[in-house]
Amino acid sequence: MATPSETRSQYGSERLITFSDGVMAVAITLLVLDLKLPEAASQGSLAEALPGLASALWCYALSFVVIGVLWMAHHNQFANIPRVDGGLLWVNLIFLMCVVLIPFVTSLLSGHDGALPTICYAAVLTANCVMLALIWWYARRTPGLMAADVSEQDRSMGLLAPLLVAAVFAGSIGVAYAFGPTAGQWTWLLAAGAGWLANRLTSTDANANLV
Amino acid sequence: MATPSETRSQYGSERLITFSDGVMAVAITLLVLDLKLPEAASQGSLAEALPGLASALWCYALSFVVIGVLWMAHHNQFANIPRVDGGLLWVNLIFLMCVVLIPFVTSLLSGHDGALPTICYAAVLTANCVMLALIWWYARRTPGLMAADVSEQDRSMGLLAPLLVAAVFAGSIGVAYAFGPTAGQWTWLLAAGAGWLANRLTSTDANANLV
Amino acid sequence: MATPSETRSQYGSERLITFSDGVMAVAITLLVLDLKLPEAASQGSLAEALPGLASALWCYALSFVVIGVLWMAHHNQFANIPRVDGGLLWVNLIFLMCVVLIPFVTSLLSGHDGALPTICYAAVLTANCVMLALIWWYARRTPGLMAADVSEQDRSMGLLAPLLVAAVFAGSIGVAYAFGPTAGQWTWLLAAGAGWLANRLTSTDANANLV
Amino acid sequence: MATPSETRSQYGSERLITFSDGVMAVAITLLVLDLKLPEAASQGSLAEALPGLASALWCYALSFVVIGVLWMAHHNQFANIPRVDGGLLWVNLIFLMCVVLIPFVTSLLSGHDGALPTICYAAVLTANCVMLALIWWYARRTPGLMAADVSEQDRSMGLLAPLLVAAVFAGSIGVAYAFGPTAGQWTWLLAAGAGWLANRLTSTDANANLV
Repeated sequence: MATPSETRSQYGSERLITFSDGVMAVAITLLVLDLKLPEAASQGSLAEALPGLASALWCYALSFVVIGVLWMAHHNQFANIPRVDGGLLWVNLIFLMCVVLIPFVTSLLSGHDGALPTICYAAVLTANCVMLALIWWYARRTPGLMAADVSEQDRSMGLLAPLLVAAVFAGSIGVAYAFGPTAGQWTWLLAAGAGWLANRLTSTDANANLV
Repeated sequence: MATPSETRSQYGSERLITFSDGVMAVAITLLVLDLKLPEAASQGSLAEALPGLASALWCYALSFVVIGVLWMAHHNQFANIPRVDGGLLWVNLIFLMCVVLIPFVTSLLSGHDGALPTICYAAVLTANCVMLALIWWYARRTPGLMAADVSEQDRSMGLLAPLLVAAVFAGSIGVAYAFGPTAGQWTWLLAAGAGWLANRLTSTDANANLV
Repeated sequence: MATPSETRSQYGSERLITFSDGVMAVAITLLVLDLKLPEAASQGSLAEALPGLASALWCYALSFVVIGVLWMAHHNQFANIPRVDGGLLWVNLIFLMCVVLIPFVTSLLSGHDGALPTICYAAVLTANCVMLALIWWYARRTPGLMAADVSEQDRSMGLLAPLLVAAVFAGSIGVAYAFGPTAGQWTWLLAAGAGWLANRLTSTDANANLV
Repeated sequence: MATPSETRSQYGSERLITFSDGVMAVAITLLVLDLKLPEAASQGSLAEALPGLASALWCYALSFVVIGVLWMAHHNQFANIPRVDGGLLWVNLIFLMCVVLIPFVTSLLSGHDGALPTICYAAVLTANCVMLALIWWYARRTPGLMAADVSEQDRSMGLLAPLLVAAVFAGSIGVAYAFGPTAGQWTWLLAAGAGWLANRLTSTDANANLV
């Protein structure tokens, strides 16, 4: 089926999946390190300090769901990408580099005021969605990587869905800049809606859980 | 056996298990980060500082066993759930979100006095048990997820056992509020007993190691 | 071969291995968190601060090898234990609890003077070796867990080897108490020798890499 | 094919790969812990503090790619090494010990001025490449470990390529010492070039992604 030269530079995707699962599992768990009471509070009354954690807890839940959704989307993509080559390893590495930034921007978001944390958070999520689209684009254009039974419609939607969500997050940067962080964060609900809509238009499960 | 439309939105549970194992392995290992001598003590005598760690060591052992038991229960559940769908991925994600909170409430419990840390700890454990019950409930009511050879009695006990343990933990919140944290923590022994009892009543091993 | 009641409470050991590998991989990597320059040094000259890291680097290498050897020993044990039951899950959990304490006693050893850190370190390693012996003892006495082709001699040596190493570490506690930490740490070389000797006496590879 | 005595001390490489993937996944994710705003900045203006992170972000991206490339090289090596013995477990453990040092030297590089951080970073990368060469050398000279269909040319290049990259990193230590850290870091581009060149000369994919 594949020529010898093709098979020599391609592998099964099992170890890429194991490594990616490991990185995302560590990144999602590191989110808990941001839930820390201020040192001063540990000698004072815990009851007074806990309400100050409400924002950190909210950011924890938000980012846990975000990384979880990215993991599901990656899960769904590679259910249709049984083989990888060197180039896909690189694209996947840059994707993971963006995922691991999420705990950092989460601590920005939970610990700082103003529009800048919201802008940084939206920028990192935009990058993550673009990288998801790039993984799919690369696997689609390289012969031998994507499973042969993926329909033409699914091949297109697998690209459109993450780009649509990326566009909403990119737009929220402008909204946060112009109308403040709260307005920017409300825009993120649109991303969930966009992901759900793209999902409805897909017959296959390639993006079944993307947002 | 399954219609084409069913198989398209369902996967084998291998990668969900890999990811969940990774998250729980990281969460259980992060517990060691809470074992830190106070900065002041590192210049003083270690012999004087170590007894102050007794409480932290006790909380470390408690939470290590708790996460270990949750892992065993999850292990047992998915030995009977060979297939997952998008909804189960979500329920499992919320379960993991509750597991990862355990290192946080452990540091509350080891570093603070009063009833509040005990209440927070019991609340997180209640949430964990409820999510375990939800995983089982979801897998039971969705055709094609649970193995066909799970007996009707086991299908019921798999739901009742975690709910029973959750009820004990929820009750310990009230006990801690009314009678203080020590009384609340003694109540947790009942949870171990409840889990053991539920286990005896189960013919299968679906909950063989739940508390 | 196995009666139905036996098989119902036993599983393949794959997921226990995955979880244990995850916990040990995280614990061994957390050792790097102890390699930190003192805050004061970060503003001063790095060249002056680096020599102060020599002790921390030495402890890092020591504990990396220790956890690595424990992983190899665990690896070798479960190459001969294809099936696990609930009891073995518990024994393995306590073993992991002792492994995860190693980063903590490593930071004691690298950051504190006197015999106490050496005593704590030796105590944790003793506990680890005892738990390894317990895993082997439990798997040997429970029908259906250990592979049938493990020779009687290997079944004995798999128990004796970790107990021998445990005895040396326990002895080093007394040495450190009586003659100081340096003498105690030199005793640890005996543990490496004891492990190597036990290894020579074993025909199989069950303990091929235990110290 | 293999004599009984050979097979008794050799294993499949699956669990070594799982453990190594876990360690590298945690090490690459711990890089994010170095992205922290200074405490003082968290009360001041975030906009003023963020530019101070540019250096840390650059070091994060550099080390993420470095660990990723080491993972790919390890990935490619073990695609040709289906079996391991006790000695290879040890060589691989020392390799992992060098990988886990990367987050430490990354924090040196991002937080300190002068040539010393660049020298430490280059020294750790040299050690990593030498260990990669040692893994390949050990697997090549031990009967039964390497797949039989690896060509003689690939067996040589698998050794030469990491040694060539190691030589460049070792040379950059001298360059940084003589001409300052910036010159030393520019030398690292040569390592990428050397890896790419070695790659071109290799017919197989054994080193397809080494730098």
